[in-house]
Amino acid sequence: MKVQVHVRLKPGVLDPQGRAIHHALEGLGFEGVEDVRAGRLIELEVAQSVTDDQIEQMCRQLLANMVIEDYRIHRVAEKETA
Amino acid sequence: MKVQVHVRLKPGVLDPQGRAIHHALEGLGFEGVEDVRAGRLIELEVAQSVTDDQIEQMCRQLLANMVIEDYRIHRVAEKETA
Repeated sequence: MKVQVHVRLKPGVLDPQGRAIHHALEGLGFEGVEDVRAGRLIELEVAQSVTDDQIEQMCRQLLANMVIEDYRIHRVAEKETA
Repeated sequence: MKVQVHVRLKPGVLDPQGRAIHHALEGLGFEGVEDVRAGRLIELEVAQSVTDDQIEQMCRQLLANMVIEDYRIHRVAEKETA
């Protein structure tokens, strides 16, 4: 079973990486970009026996820093590659 | 308009960050994790005037390293926060 975890900075937390990307896009001449936030995309391949609760625990204990980050768990259907 | 860009290492490219996460999850006692891949999640807030082609160009020129990474563009509906 494939699981995607999206880890993002909480709203209001300063994002220097996102700001650098934003600045670089403007430097390359791209217009109309209003904001950029950078986060992490963690893809787990887990056994069917792994429960939702266990995945939540992985996020809270390791994958996300709960002080400044939020996480979101997406289950990916077997056929889907996104 | 909110756009998410998922940047992932191409299959076969060594992923030391993913491996470190995998190892750490095992160290914490989580079982059933078969593979972990680490990527980036970049969220752009762009004006309605920005075209799909321009977003593709941003990915190719800056957001992804096309030699070792793939990208995928997801448009996020206004109401959705994922």
